[in-house]
Amino acid sequence: MPIVRVEMWTGRTEAQKKELARVITDAMVNIAHTTPEATIVVFEDIEKDNWAQAGKLSSDD
Amino acid sequence: MPIVRVEMWTGRTEAQKKELARVITDAMVNIAHTTPEATIVVFEDIEKDNWAQAGKLSSDD
Amino acid sequence: MPIVRVEMWTGRTEAQKKELARVITDAMVNIAHTTPEATIVVFEDIEKDNWAQAGKLSSDD
Amino acid sequence: MPIVRVEMWTGRTEAQKKELARVITDAMVNIAHTTPEATIVVFEDIEKDNWAQAGKLSSDD
Amino acid sequence: MPIVRVEMWTGRTEAQKKELARVITDAMVNIAHTTPEATIVVFEDIEKDNWAQAGKLSSDD
Amino acid sequence: MPIVRVEMWTGRTEAQKKELARVITDAMVNIAHTTPEATIVVFEDIEKDNWAQAGKLSSDD
Repeated sequence: MPIVRVEMWTGRTEAQKKELARVITDAMVNIAHTTPEATIVVFEDIEKDNWAQAGKLSSDD
Repeated sequence: MPIVRVEMWTGRTEAQKKELARVITDAMVNIAHTTPEATIVVFEDIEKDNWAQAGKLSSDD
Repeated sequence: MPIVRVEMWTGRTEAQKKELARVITDAMVNIAHTTPEATIVVFEDIEKDNWAQAGKLSSDD
Repeated sequence: MPIVRVEMWTGRTEAQKKELARVITDAMVNIAHTTPEATIVVFEDIEKDNWAQAGKLSSDD
Repeated sequence: MPIVRVEMWTGRTEAQKKELARVITDAMVNIAHTTPEATIVVFEDIEKDNWAQAGKLSSDD
Repeated sequence: MPIVRVEMWTGRTEAQKKELARVITDAMVNIAHTTPEATIVVFEDIEKDNWAQAGKLSSDD
């Protein structure tokens, strides 16, 4: 049942997402007692000029 | 007032989205008693390598 | 694979959500060619004082 | 602590996003009494053929 | 057309949300050149025990 | 920079969320090479009558 949504800056590789999906799903199964099949992980790549902190776009940092 | 957000793998055509928008809006109007004008549908196309189930990216299936 | 998220003001009954889940899932299956089992619908009830349009909380309308 | 997410049609320039990030962050700090550093603003550009109102894709308007 | 979603810890008053809705909508109109009527702001109050930073729930801070 | 959002049925304890926040943050740091301080995890508890799969509310299962 759980849906996990991961928003990160673009630049993470497919290998990193693969590993994140595996580790996060394991955590959901072991800690939240769900099944792997019921666990969905969705990644959203955000460009730095679409992300701001402290009022400034991260592309300006 | 309702906002409906549809996350699907990329690959759905504009014709399919057009039809989905029509049918989902009709459902909101008929069942939830809102107006068509107040109903917003947003589609998000997700790449298969940004989607994981059972700990595996869907691009690996 | 699709995840559909429906944000509406609180007040919709369980019967209405049941009917919406059924009709939206049918639409996803028939139009987007997915399976019922792969289709998740999540409802979020939003209080009117958490919703604004035209700069005014809907609880003030 | 606040996360602000802004979904708009594509077409807004980086200068507009920069200004929006600044003004929205100021509003969070002045009105909600948080700090600039704790305020994240994320922009999502939505294509008009991924956005529907009144049952019609905005790309058809 | 824009949808703005504001996630904050619970505790903000209705007066604060009212003011935020007004200021954010003004920003969208003046900077992103949309109309007030087309601008929706949704607030989500998050409990501190549903929010973590640096691996710790904010309710533990 | 990453924001992780976890939607689960209500019923998970604070201890489980604490452990999930810790493990997910560790994963983001080790695999995606961010810092703990930059990693935010938000939990959303969804009632079973707000969640549907295969066209049926989970409260009916």
